[in-house]
Amino acid sequence: MARKKKGLLLVVSGPAGVGKGTVDGALIAKHPEIKMSVSVTTRAPRPGEIEGVHYFFRTKEEFDRMIEQNAFLEYMHVFGMNYYGTPKAFVEAEREKGNHVILEIDVQGAMKVKETCPDAVMVFIAPPSLQILKQRLVGRGTETQESIDVRTATALEELKKLPRYDYMVINDVVEEAVADMEAILSAELNRTERNAELITKLTGGETI
Amino acid sequence: MARKKKGLLLVVSGPAGVGKGTVDGALIAKHPEIKMSVSVTTRAPRPGEIEGVHYFFRTKEEFDRMIEQNAFLEYMHVFGMNYYGTPKAFVEAEREKGNHVILEIDVQGAMKVKETCPDAVMVFIAPPSLQILKQRLVGRGTETQESIDVRTATALEELKKLPRYDYMVINDVVEEAVADMEAILSAELNRTERNAELITKLTGGETI
Repeated sequence: MARKKKGLLLVVSGPAGVGKGTVDGALIAKHPEIKMSVSVTTRAPRPGEIEGVHYFFRTKEEFDRMIEQNAFLEYMHVFGMNYYGTPKAFVEAEREKGNHVILEIDVQGAMKVKETCPDAVMVFIAPPSLQILKQRLVGRGTETQESIDVRTATALEELKKLPRYDYMVINDVVEEAVADMEAILSAELNRTERNAELITKLTGGETI
Repeated sequence: MARKKKGLLLVVSGPAGVGKGTVDGALIAKHPEIKMSVSVTTRAPRPGEIEGVHYFFRTKEEFDRMIEQNAFLEYMHVFGMNYYGTPKAFVEAEREKGNHVILEIDVQGAMKVKETCPDAVMVFIAPPSLQILKQRLVGRGTETQESIDVRTATALEELKKLPRYDYMVINDVVEEAVADMEAILSAELNRTERNAELITKLTGGETI
């Protein structure tokens, strides 16, 4: 996976409680060439948050200018107050270095990214079953019954959109989910349509 | 890779001398759930060849009947004398058991298989360069200069058709090529379009 070719953009969605963060975190810990996407936000930094690491903190005016400049892969308003967006420049710069970028995002945002970046690899992390997802949410011990019900209902709606993704990874055992993600990255790097340059080099330019 | 889902048909092409057999052999040795496709032929068995292992030996009449019955993924005449074909039934039976089937075949045959079996995974094994392929052919010590020239020219023609394949695997170090093939199998098993049943089970049948 450390070849000198353009890195991949891996768009990762999945319901709350499925363990996206755990899987992506384990993947990044193993592979220094994989980076998490850093979002732009108009909200104020919280204590300990570092510019360029947790977020790029920008004013609403700056954010609006970025929208005008078409500088986002996707962006959205939250509660009609703060803006969040995925800056193209960060993702492109990392990919040009040969690094892969993981963008954790909800289904709606993922579909926008697919439009602005058609070569993104779309991965949905799914629970073994809705029942197991519910048990995991209960197990957290931090969710109210109402919140668990809402999250389970939302999860079902999200799962229905699974066919819009390229891959599904079942997060049953974390290590297996990580291995599945590694295989997806490796296989995608070997897709012929991502290797036009190499094919040109092998054939002297001619293909039929 | 040992999950109870339908296995994959992996169509593998690549120029003479690239090491297809070595890569596929190593893959099969590691994974008992991967099988080589067994062809039907009208030629006579050679000493030691076993029916159903090396080939299915059939008469021309039987072969013609199989053509009529649409029983081949692809078939061809060789030297206007003997017929060779890939029987659908063998491939399907293995895939239904959850096994993967590797079909080593030339580019022309591969394209026919892609038509009759659109969910086949098309893999092209390529050399690091044409120069290196030529060196390997020379290194065999069994090829005449003329044969090396012909094979190199044929290899170039085959490489030009690389974009028709889903994946390309560079056979530089065999172990790495095997790992690439493993990743392709694993990733393909996680493609959403191969998991319609699982998605239906997760969502209770509704998708949007």
